[in-house]
Amino acid sequence: MTRDSYAAAGVDIAAGNEAVARYKDVMHGWRHADQLEEIGGFGGLFRLPGDSERALAASTDGVGTKVLIAAELERYDTVGADLVNHCVNDILVVNATPLFFLDYLAVGKLEPDVAAEIVRGCFEACRKHNCALLGGETAEMPGLYAEKHFDLAGTIVGLVDLQDVPKREDVQPGDAIVGLPARGLHTNGYTLARKLLDTKTFGDLLLAGHPSYYDAVRAMQKVARVKAMAHITGGGLLENLPRTLPDNVKAICEHSRWEVPPVFVELVRRGNLDHKERYRTFNMGIGYTLVVPLADAAKAVAAAPGAKVIGWIEARSGDEPRAIVHPSRA
Amino acid sequence: MTRDSYAAAGVDIAAGNEAVARYKDVMHGWRHADQLEEIGGFGGLFRLPGDSERALAASTDGVGTKVLIAAELERYDTVGADLVNHCVNDILVVNATPLFFLDYLAVGKLEPDVAAEIVRGCFEACRKHNCALLGGETAEMPGLYAEKHFDLAGTIVGLVDLQDVPKREDVQPGDAIVGLPARGLHTNGYTLARKLLDTKTFGDLLLAGHPSYYDAVRAMQKVARVKAMAHITGGGLLENLPRTLPDNVKAICEHSRWEVPPVFVELVRRGNLDHKERYRTFNMGIGYTLVVPLADAAKAVAAAPGAKVIGWIEARSGDEPRAIVHPSRA
Repeated sequence: MTRDSYAAAGVDIAAGNEAVARYKDVMHGWRHADQLEEIGGFGGLFRLPGDSERALAASTDGVGTKVLIAAELERYDTVGADLVNHCVNDILVVNATPLFFLDYLAVGKLEPDVAAEIVRGCFEACRKHNCALLGGETAEMPGLYAEKHFDLAGTIVGLVDLQDVPKREDVQPGDAIVGLPARGLHTNGYTLARKLLDTKTFGDLLLAGHPSYYDAVRAMQKVARVKAMAHITGGGLLENLPRTLPDNVKAICEHSRWEVPPVFVELVRRGNLDHKERYRTFNMGIGYTLVVPLADAAKAVAAAPGAKVIGWIEARSGDEPRAIVHPSRA
Repeated sequence: MTRDSYAAAGVDIAAGNEAVARYKDVMHGWRHADQLEEIGGFGGLFRLPGDSERALAASTDGVGTKVLIAAELERYDTVGADLVNHCVNDILVVNATPLFFLDYLAVGKLEPDVAAEIVRGCFEACRKHNCALLGGETAEMPGLYAEKHFDLAGTIVGLVDLQDVPKREDVQPGDAIVGLPARGLHTNGYTLARKLLDTKTFGDLLLAGHPSYYDAVRAMQKVARVKAMAHITGGGLLENLPRTLPDNVKAICEHSRWEVPPVFVELVRRGNLDHKERYRTFNMGIGYTLVVPLADAAKAVAAAPGAKVIGWIEARSGDEPRAIVHPSRA
């Protein structure tokens, strides 16, 4: 377990991975009969009661310490949509369409105006996806949260035809990796970013919204065979790309193929972040990836604004890394 | 908006009610076609896709500042079950059976051992209900949480036959109110309790578990017609009992009919809490209520350990309160 800049800032991805491994130990030995094998862990799958062909997909997420920036700038209208879109993207990886969402808002001191502004952001993003805001919890917890602080998490439930859930085994060497552009940090890397950038000066850049990739993905699926997808969140390209790939392939990306947004350039410069830190802490400009046959790549890219071929799939052997980001083709 | 002891301790129930009213404004004008009218707001209902007779019920909850007591005493094995049981009880009010649960765990500093202990509590309570622990999120958020602090929230999704969802209109004057015993504060009132009681001395009492009422309710439903139910959480008997009752009735309870656990006696004494504060901040020994026809009350009580008739339903007119807790029959 190495300690890098992100760990020094207080977020230890290695500890996170260790916790996830411990959860698997905890749950070893029992699984509900209707719980389906997960595909990369972006969203859990549960057989739809009374229906052998469809499943519910569910995911819980937060927006990380982006909430601290929102609190400091008193900008409460953006994090709700960030959260909903994050959740939508997570279950989109298994091809699910949103049904309903519930929020959890915890505050140090409850200001109804502020809470309503945050929930409005959730509601409007839900509505855009024809997703019900079915419920939620607002908790006032002085002593845990400072007076102006809050945390925001949410859970989405969606629906998917089982035949439409991507199958790892379909991915083959030679397939193309298509990337969809990120608008900024989305909901990851804020603890490090807050150490490196002044919140007041960089507030707009730091609060740039986490987009939904729902429409772009659906448009691409009309013209291309999409074999695997990944939502580039905590862990960046290096950890998220492999989550939906089989063990016998690796993902090769070339970062010359997309434009890295200025906020990341500034973060890398100020933090003197090495290659691994950059691509494991931040999305570096790619918010969502799709694996498609090379023959479909041009059509896929044409179907969604800003989409680019950012790499390809190669055969992998032994202990080779499962994802690599190169400066350019070797 | 009066300020009482709980508000002075930092939790303003009036502000909470105001926030909920604001959320309704925010969501005014749009509702998903498959979102069903809610019954008291304990759990949202959403039509099961492709099934006209069943619905999904969902609820998100936290465990409040009970997490601060767990953190101070370094007792991480209880709050997970508290949370799951809280969620189970919430959707039980609409008669739903749990399908799956997802947790949100946010920490100041991620200790995999501690996180695994908390999640183990969730898992074991899920398993007891044959409920899948389908996913979750663990977030390390320094700056928002103190190093040893954490917050824990969760979302449950269950299934219910629409014909089994209780209908307010069935409740009539003369019906009996059956109460199920609470083990302690469950997950509400901790911010005030922490002001009044020393955490180290009263640790065991304060961490007493939030029970699931699932088995007790199912046992009672076999022998009695259950017309309405309420989970006695934040807001106590005074605010939760009316949530599933029609406007034309009121709930009358006599607190001589059940034993108030010693922890509440001590809280009332130390805080010099008036009647309204007691019954709006704490459950005062009743964790869950059921409205049954008077003719079924004896059978219902016999079916569940500790169950007692705690009151009855009367006709209500004009601006009369919707729930009253008397010392004894007037």
